[in-house]
Amino acid sequence: MLKQHSFDQINPPARLLMGPGPINADPRVLRAMSSQLIGQYDPAMTDYMNQTMALYRQVFVTDNPWTMLVDGTSRAGIEAVLVSIIRPGDKVLVPIFGRFGHLLCEIARRCRAQVHTIEVPWGEVFDPQRIDDAIQSVQPRLLACVQGDTSTTMLQPLAEIGEICHRHDVLFYCDATASIAGNPLHTDAWHLDAVSAGLQKCLGGPSGSSPITLSEQFSAQVRARKHVEQGIRNAQHQDGDEEMVYSNYFDLGMIMDYWGPERLNHHTEATSMLFGARECARIIAQEGIDQCVARHQIHGEAMVKGLQAMGLALFGDLAHKMSNVTGVFIPQGIDGEQVRQLLLNDFGIEIGTSFGPLHGKIWRIGVMGYNARKDTVLTTLAALEAVLNHLGFVTTQGSAMQAAWDFYE
Amino acid sequence: MLKQHSFDQINPPARLLMGPGPINADPRVLRAMSSQLIGQYDPAMTDYMNQTMALYRQVFVTDNPWTMLVDGTSRAGIEAVLVSIIRPGDKVLVPIFGRFGHLLCEIARRCRAQVHTIEVPWGEVFDPQRIDDAIQSVQPRLLACVQGDTSTTMLQPLAEIGEICHRHDVLFYCDATASIAGNPLHTDAWHLDAVSAGLQKCLGGPSGSSPITLSEQFSAQVRARKHVEQGIRNAQHQDGDEEMVYSNYFDLGMIMDYWGPERLNHHTEATSMLFGARECARIIAQEGIDQCVARHQIHGEAMVKGLQAMGLALFGDLAHKMSNVTGVFIPQGIDGEQVRQLLLNDFGIEIGTSFGPLHGKIWRIGVMGYNARKDTVLTTLAALEAVLNHLGFVTTQGSAMQAAWDFYE
Repeated sequence: MLKQHSFDQINPPARLLMGPGPINADPRVLRAMSSQLIGQYDPAMTDYMNQTMALYRQVFVTDNPWTMLVDGTSRAGIEAVLVSIIRPGDKVLVPIFGRFGHLLCEIARRCRAQVHTIEVPWGEVFDPQRIDDAIQSVQPRLLACVQGDTSTTMLQPLAEIGEICHRHDVLFYCDATASIAGNPLHTDAWHLDAVSAGLQKCLGGPSGSSPITLSEQFSAQVRARKHVEQGIRNAQHQDGDEEMVYSNYFDLGMIMDYWGPERLNHHTEATSMLFGARECARIIAQEGIDQCVARHQIHGEAMVKGLQAMGLALFGDLAHKMSNVTGVFIPQGIDGEQVRQLLLNDFGIEIGTSFGPLHGKIWRIGVMGYNARKDTVLTTLAALEAVLNHLGFVTTQGSAMQAAWDFYE
Repeated sequence: MLKQHSFDQINPPARLLMGPGPINADPRVLRAMSSQLIGQYDPAMTDYMNQTMALYRQVFVTDNPWTMLVDGTSRAGIEAVLVSIIRPGDKVLVPIFGRFGHLLCEIARRCRAQVHTIEVPWGEVFDPQRIDDAIQSVQPRLLACVQGDTSTTMLQPLAEIGEICHRHDVLFYCDATASIAGNPLHTDAWHLDAVSAGLQKCLGGPSGSSPITLSEQFSAQVRARKHVEQGIRNAQHQDGDEEMVYSNYFDLGMIMDYWGPERLNHHTEATSMLFGARECARIIAQEGIDQCVARHQIHGEAMVKGLQAMGLALFGDLAHKMSNVTGVFIPQGIDGEQVRQLLLNDFGIEIGTSFGPLHGKIWRIGVMGYNARKDTVLTTLAALEAVLNHLGFVTTQGSAMQAAWDFYE
């Protein structure tokens, strides 16, 4: 027997989200998303799609024509890139420096790639020479690498690696979900062939849309595998020479036909998410992508200064830390989850726990997107310090917030 | 050289969307989506996830515990169901009565199924006996069938087919994207093993979230293929016995672990879309699913009465038409696209064109979701009649609207 449930309207508690993401959306993004819908072939809609492409070229710092959205979370963008390029048996090299490197491997394996990996301990990044050596030994078709892995807070330098891939004629894909707009990323200058992202980190929107960009070389190889759906094909349509990729939803050849001038019907574009994604990029374009990155660096550093002033030890190689996430060792004798609960329930502030080998050892504190601001940094430091003092980890109350405030001066 | 673009804020033109979908979202859904975000493991968030499951059980008329959202458009839900159940070489039978039957075939082929099809001409549906015969001859593991195919406006009766599948021990999956909440659908009573949907039709929301429900039998077979991601696995985690499915994003075994009590991290839930999907179902639960279907039937029939009073011929087997979409033959001597342009530009009303064999022959007029109302039907009929008269297809001006108005009396 079916039970009838009725629930109240959505009314989420007020939260300041200072974890590794998602973070609070910029209110302008939520307002854009509350706009009424239009048809998917309405000229106003296709204009918005074209504008979204232009705006994300600024975010990715690229001239790539194929810069568009995949309708799903950031993981959807990763899978769309990998499944569209990988042919069964292709060699893929993945440098793993955290959880999301493992994810790239797993998705590539599901595409039936032959996956080769190199690893560094969590908290470190790769020396470019090591990647060069691995490329020469493995001779992969594709190098797939995370830029900023929130699981470790590390930021892999990519500029030299792009140069290495270019020299060895290896395609280079980067998952920039957690790093983009908070750390420098130069798609064209760094020879990145494909980059994917998500809205819920430094872009300041909700999860659910994944901006991607593809180089000319990459998109040409994807197009060679293109197939037009039987229900909409006509005599003019020509398929690529290769076997269909494992996914229809993530077939970038089809998604290009939908975003391109032919406007071939594929999925029904997620209009509200597109409105949100466009607004995220529009806000960044207004600020300037370089200014946006600089803002993350300033507020991220203020958070670091405050945490250090509290006497907390920070995790990992600080010379290669993402600006927008900081790993903090949970002090001895302190219950990390109790701290998170007190922060959430009494201060309305969320900070992050951690995965895998770091579980129970560090908190992850994010300063990103709409929340990369002076007030959020000061408020979070004050609350964390109060909670730690309350639990017996004694600091000079107020010193952390003061150190950050001094840094801003 | 990167060109700098700046664009205005989102400000879509006012449109009354009376095509085959997407249609205007219920304003309550857009308001729910404009709520600020919360963390994905915030108790408030996991409560909203559980409530969303309960609410969609009412929409699908099922007791299935595994009733949840796939983060993507309706096509994402289709692919998640198919890729999670199909093993390479499995026999899948697809009865095709329009474009979306072809889509099910294509996705199943990409999952490396052995796909068998039966077809009827566009505008007809299948006699259950024919499906029974095909099942006995093909002996498939899965029958995959669309309920309402907007490309032809036809609604395939499913109750008897469910009984047939049950008798032959064949899994039965139904794509109810375009039909659900506008036409009867009884997941449990009809022995449906998996059903997928989308928000942008009768559910009254934007595209971008796909509610699905899985029977006990179906979910058990999916679980047998489960794998836990390496980056988050621990010694307690056990993988299924079978090879990993082709997709990580659409691996329903993983998505069940995320929505279930274990709350294993997978994608970052698309919070705004979840808020919207929950509100769509909440509104329907308030109205009652049967009342919602009845409302679609009343307003759909009013539209039919009006179109017929205008002297227009309707497409297909009217005894098996979806309540929420009507195919209308474009009268001889009338340019169908010119009519659509005048309706859009001068009246702000969008009606649909059509695909494949029906392209240029019929319009498709939708009455669904938030737009299944008396005022939208009357306004659309009046505008269409005015445009047709203007272009020389002479009717008694006002007769169509009057016929619908009379019907409502």
